[in-house]
Amino acid sequence: MLDKKKVVLAYSGGLDTSVATMWLKEQGYEVITMTADVGQQVDLEAAKQKALKSGASKAYVMDLKQEFVKEFVWPALKANAMYQGTYPLNSALSRPLIAKVMAMVAKKENAGAVAHGCTGKGQDQVRIEVCTNALNPELDVLAPVRDWHFSREAEMEYAQAHDIPVMATTASPYSIDENIWGRSIECGILEDPWNEPPADAYTLTVDPWNAPDHQEFVEITFEKGIPVALNGEAMDGPSLIQTLNEQAGKHGVGRIDMVEDRLVGFKSREVYECPAAMTLIAAHKALETLTLDKKVLASKKELEVKYAELTYEGYWYSPLKEAIDSFVDTTQEYVNGVVKVRFYKGQAVVRGMKSPNSIYQQNLATYSEGDAFDHAAAVGFIKIWGLPVKTWKQVHKDKMPVEIFC
Amino acid sequence: MLDKKKVVLAYSGGLDTSVATMWLKEQGYEVITMTADVGQQVDLEAAKQKALKSGASKAYVMDLKQEFVKEFVWPALKANAMYQGTYPLNSALSRPLIAKVMAMVAKKENAGAVAHGCTGKGQDQVRIEVCTNALNPELDVLAPVRDWHFSREAEMEYAQAHDIPVMATTASPYSIDENIWGRSIECGILEDPWNEPPADAYTLTVDPWNAPDHQEFVEITFEKGIPVALNGEAMDGPSLIQTLNEQAGKHGVGRIDMVEDRLVGFKSREVYECPAAMTLIAAHKALETLTLDKKVLASKKELEVKYAELTYEGYWYSPLKEAIDSFVDTTQEYVNGVVKVRFYKGQAVVRGMKSPNSIYQQNLATYSEGDAFDHAAAVGFIKIWGLPVKTWKQVHKDKMPVEIFC
Amino acid sequence: MLDKKKVVLAYSGGLDTSVATMWLKEQGYEVITMTADVGQQVDLEAAKQKALKSGASKAYVMDLKQEFVKEFVWPALKANAMYQGTYPLNSALSRPLIAKVMAMVAKKENAGAVAHGCTGKGQDQVRIEVCTNALNPELDVLAPVRDWHFSREAEMEYAQAHDIPVMATTASPYSIDENIWGRSIECGILEDPWNEPPADAYTLTVDPWNAPDHQEFVEITFEKGIPVALNGEAMDGPSLIQTLNEQAGKHGVGRIDMVEDRLVGFKSREVYECPAAMTLIAAHKALETLTLDKKVLASKKELEVKYAELTYEGYWYSPLKEAIDSFVDTTQEYVNGVVKVRFYKGQAVVRGMKSPNSIYQQNLATYSEGDAFDHAAAVGFIKIWGLPVKTWKQVHKDKMPVEIFC
Amino acid sequence: MLDKKKVVLAYSGGLDTSVATMWLKEQGYEVITMTADVGQQVDLEAAKQKALKSGASKAYVMDLKQEFVKEFVWPALKANAMYQGTYPLNSALSRPLIAKVMAMVAKKENAGAVAHGCTGKGQDQVRIEVCTNALNPELDVLAPVRDWHFSREAEMEYAQAHDIPVMATTASPYSIDENIWGRSIECGILEDPWNEPPADAYTLTVDPWNAPDHQEFVEITFEKGIPVALNGEAMDGPSLIQTLNEQAGKHGVGRIDMVEDRLVGFKSREVYECPAAMTLIAAHKALETLTLDKKVLASKKELEVKYAELTYEGYWYSPLKEAIDSFVDTTQEYVNGVVKVRFYKGQAVVRGMKSPNSIYQQNLATYSEGDAFDHAAAVGFIKIWGLPVKTWKQVHKDKMPVEIFC
Repeated sequence: MLDKKKVVLAYSGGLDTSVATMWLKEQGYEVITMTADVGQQVDLEAAKQKALKSGASKAYVMDLKQEFVKEFVWPALKANAMYQGTYPLNSALSRPLIAKVMAMVAKKENAGAVAHGCTGKGQDQVRIEVCTNALNPELDVLAPVRDWHFSREAEMEYAQAHDIPVMATTASPYSIDENIWGRSIECGILEDPWNEPPADAYTLTVDPWNAPDHQEFVEITFEKGIPVALNGEAMDGPSLIQTLNEQAGKHGVGRIDMVEDRLVGFKSREVYECPAAMTLIAAHKALETLTLDKKVLASKKELEVKYAELTYEGYWYSPLKEAIDSFVDTTQEYVNGVVKVRFYKGQAVVRGMKSPNSIYQQNLATYSEGDAFDHAAAVGFIKIWGLPVKTWKQVHKDKMPVEIFC
Repeated sequence: MLDKKKVVLAYSGGLDTSVATMWLKEQGYEVITMTADVGQQVDLEAAKQKALKSGASKAYVMDLKQEFVKEFVWPALKANAMYQGTYPLNSALSRPLIAKVMAMVAKKENAGAVAHGCTGKGQDQVRIEVCTNALNPELDVLAPVRDWHFSREAEMEYAQAHDIPVMATTASPYSIDENIWGRSIECGILEDPWNEPPADAYTLTVDPWNAPDHQEFVEITFEKGIPVALNGEAMDGPSLIQTLNEQAGKHGVGRIDMVEDRLVGFKSREVYECPAAMTLIAAHKALETLTLDKKVLASKKELEVKYAELTYEGYWYSPLKEAIDSFVDTTQEYVNGVVKVRFYKGQAVVRGMKSPNSIYQQNLATYSEGDAFDHAAAVGFIKIWGLPVKTWKQVHKDKMPVEIFC
Repeated sequence: MLDKKKVVLAYSGGLDTSVATMWLKEQGYEVITMTADVGQQVDLEAAKQKALKSGASKAYVMDLKQEFVKEFVWPALKANAMYQGTYPLNSALSRPLIAKVMAMVAKKENAGAVAHGCTGKGQDQVRIEVCTNALNPELDVLAPVRDWHFSREAEMEYAQAHDIPVMATTASPYSIDENIWGRSIECGILEDPWNEPPADAYTLTVDPWNAPDHQEFVEITFEKGIPVALNGEAMDGPSLIQTLNEQAGKHGVGRIDMVEDRLVGFKSREVYECPAAMTLIAAHKALETLTLDKKVLASKKELEVKYAELTYEGYWYSPLKEAIDSFVDTTQEYVNGVVKVRFYKGQAVVRGMKSPNSIYQQNLATYSEGDAFDHAAAVGFIKIWGLPVKTWKQVHKDKMPVEIFC
Repeated sequence: MLDKKKVVLAYSGGLDTSVATMWLKEQGYEVITMTADVGQQVDLEAAKQKALKSGASKAYVMDLKQEFVKEFVWPALKANAMYQGTYPLNSALSRPLIAKVMAMVAKKENAGAVAHGCTGKGQDQVRIEVCTNALNPELDVLAPVRDWHFSREAEMEYAQAHDIPVMATTASPYSIDENIWGRSIECGILEDPWNEPPADAYTLTVDPWNAPDHQEFVEITFEKGIPVALNGEAMDGPSLIQTLNEQAGKHGVGRIDMVEDRLVGFKSREVYECPAAMTLIAAHKALETLTLDKKVLASKKELEVKYAELTYEGYWYSPLKEAIDSFVDTTQEYVNGVVKVRFYKGQAVVRGMKSPNSIYQQNLATYSEGDAFDHAAAVGFIKIWGLPVKTWKQVHKDKMPVEIFC
């Protein structure tokens, strides 16, 4: 029997989840916090202490960077996953991991509930709750911040009254979520789509005009769709991403500014910075054009759209995601090679690629000697290719009339 | 009765089509040339004289820039048409226009055939022949260059023997096609995808590091999906594109380098430069995110892929293109507004937009006071949204097992 | 200013909506009922009297059969709309009409709310509420039956206590919705998918073995995708559908039995009988194979899936539906002709068709003399068509190995 | 080194391939014939003798029924593969097998070429040649019948002159291809789509009115998407299909009559009879509605269309087919259970199903007591579900106006 008054809370170390810890405790719950290190800038030991001070009976702090990259980031990269073609899902990808780890801790601790600090209009509440449903339908999911309707001021007062440490600094105008795959930024000024994002919203990337005045190159080696080396040097996933985040970020690469359709029915202006993600997706896509068949590329693109939607909408643990992964993995067998990328003033541009599995055949493509293409075949091909429109016009003689305008 | 020994030849002014003129004449045809001005850099009067010297009985020279933009470029822009997500179809879009004008001239001149100077492995032969099939199935289509198999040297000799003027300059290493929507470049060195495109291949764009050191902005006004003004100043289509080509090109914007899947069954490395096209497509897409519904955006994206394929593959005059145009036009009713674009060092970035038809609602999106979103509704929504995966897991208890790694 | 205490109720004449009328009145509303005649078997005058007895201040009874067919059924037929490829949306199509007429009556009566008698787990609540949102966002939507949680017995008691007439007959085990496009049946026994639907669930169709022992034919004439005549006799929409319902129903045609995915997150066993709908959709689809281009057929099929989903999910009044209608209407221009259908023992089978717009060309298809197809062209076509897989195999020599099993 | 003057011919035993054997021999080839037993009605020993009499140096006769079902039919069934939603690909599925076995025999015999007896306008030439390209790009593919342009009379004369046995019977008006998955019929009278198929075209199915007057049931057990038992009795693939062919055929089930779009650019009227195939596909699809998630069903349907096209168009051995197979196989893990099918007068109707993996949950679907669905959640769900169209209408107030017609 699960203990329904024991709850595992995803704890960030910020005001919301600290207050939530105490608040849940006051509701009669034993609260166990779980703080995930997915590559964000946070003092984990301090977070642990703060959790305990905020009323947690136990505070887990877990380094999940390897799991995050291996089980979430790389599969998404293989699928070139970008929601609405633009957002590399940096925040969305961490939610199923957090839900999974909460479910694991709950199992270990025999807790009957998990909790998160999301509000009622974001996507993250959907992701964490739906993923938890999918992982262990018996777990209750609590959302104290959504339920209590505290204003910022009321939260502060509550915190002070309960001895929860509050940062002395004035509140940042930005609401941030960060991990190794990128950084999501929301703030009031962005709510008017005519406004440019403020320069100080960014921490991983410089403004392009502050980037170095010279171009810089990196060669990225892929094996079965996954990057394994930079400039020939093998690296594990988190290190490779970290290295690229720094290099690309220094050149101002990876800023995204979009109006995005939320699952909960409205449009939202969002700003992201994802230097490594944007570089790797561009390189990966390019390598696929060299190594994958035209029909595979076309069908994969359609599934990539679905993959990104499933991730965005909380369906990471779902039978469709499982089936698309099988499709994608079958194609990635062939995505091996090296891609040369140039960084300069805000742009990452693919400047060359080579692959042992290249199906680009120079002897077919060339216009020089050695041309292996059968030019005569084109005549028959075009005759048959054009037959349907020829027939159409023979039947519909009056359609698409040709008027003389000369 | 059409005169089957009278042929209208699409005449560029270059060596191939000049030799083709004479060659067709020697085969017993009366050759009427048609030179289309679609915004390329060419001396039209010189082309006319050269056509006549090469054996043409009559040489049409036609300014088609307005028709090209209105009937081909704007519809493609409304569909954000990019083949394989990358190539803005600059060359592909001019072929159905050329086929149409050849069919018109043929009708006027009672000619029974049209001819083009394409070789047997390109796309343009397909486009011109299939479009001609669709416009007037009774016309023969001749492809002298594909048929005669002259080497470059043989062509030169033939030209000299027949008094066809040949440029004294050494042959350019580049094979170029150009119009107002962009420029396509092929050359030998590009045939190895590891090689970077040579700097002198470009004429419309500068290298990013030679671009100005300051950012520059342009505000583009769209009406029903079509750009009608720059910085508030109304312009006709060709002028607006020309202006943007210069401004964006000066900042190094619009270079494309890709491996592309040809219709005729192989991959090809292609380089394009399309400063105005890339700027306008980026701005148009952004404005659609502000003014079109999520479901419309998603379905339109799928049809855009087909639209680009139809254009690439010669199916411009086809019933599917007609039906997709109806879909697209219905959506573009709402695509009105102004998009602010920043040019800097090779990039055109959207930095703001506004629209009288915006369906972005700040009172739904805001996290500040005035929030009109019903947070409580999210609870019910998530419950139902997550029900399928919850049910799935209840049935498939042993799937996606949760293992403790903490 | 709308009167928020005045409500227009969609009134069927059954127990639920009669009790709802009285219950809303007791909550302080003035209730105006609207009973739509969409071809169901109902005594409209009796319904009107019952509404007034149940507390309505005014009772509209409206013959909407022409509007229903013209604005809802024919567009759906042009789109071959079948949810999950199986359900012809008979009930789903009437909801946007009912929402529209309620909005109209509300406007005329200055009512600030509309109401329906749906429960909380069906689709119809979604359809009526979402359509009302789309038609007039200022209207409140009330769902008394969903809110009050009366058991059947409590409802009966309430009715008797308030002098609402209750049918003396024992309750039917079936829950029915009916209109001219078909009949939806739910009942307890169907909740086990292993059970066969009971014979007495059907009223529009006979069991196949009770159908006549002879085949019968009908010739259906289509103009622009819409049926306009049976056996050469012109008919208006409702008459044509009614006639086919009788003829096809007599032969046992049109029974549907499926497990369907509801929008609200679970699967449901559903039984429908739609004699005319199933006959017309089969005939319409067949005529499209004769008159529409292969590429149009393929793309239209994809949009048909979306069209059916939008209808099923309450998005009839939405910009995507509008855009798909434009696509569909453009294609239906060509869908003219006559389809011969045979009825026999539960089946409607297309047995012949002809069209002035047929693009089937006997001289291309024939294997006899007069063959106009260029057989030689096939050689070149196949060479190019097969080039990608040939190249693939040349690169991936070890894949798909050929082992000797002879 | 392959011997380019040695050819493996796919030999049916008919006039075309017998003449082809001799004709190739006269062209200087050594001809090895390969006759595949894929379940058609043919005297294999007689075919062998005839091949040798027609000039073959060696005549293979191979029983491929197990391979055909296991490697081609079952994967197609798992994908519910029907070209244009109608044709179960019976002939198309045997071509990649024949190409594979020819490639195998060629390898064993060191032959440098394979040959087939197709003409220039069918699909089969495409399938065999493209599949051969994909299996062994070094093999030449010969198509003597396409090349020689013999009339029927000339063929007969040639046969008699070369002592090739010719059937004494008058030529059948039908051109037939048959295997265990069904039978394809072409004939002159079918070339007018207004004509009904003649009764004597069919051999596997009776006319519905000649079918028994009683219904008959079969229960089909599926494991991982593959049928493994009939009425509880385990059977291997060919036996199960054969049994169903007889039972369903006896009831007149499985006739297909369609206008189909050929790959080579024109429409063709085709008649098929596939009793087992149509029964199994219907049963399999039904079982999927019980066991697969809504999103999986929707995405799978899109891939099924592609799967059928790839099969139809000769792309069986292609990387996209390989990737779709991975997707499909992942989904079929869950497609286990029993489907009850009723045969009666031309129809196979699913009348019940059950599965250990059913995700239909009676406690969610029921309207009776025990209802586990949270009705209140619907309120929040609908609010968010309808928000986009509500917003749309608030912005576009003048669109979709409500006019009073009451």
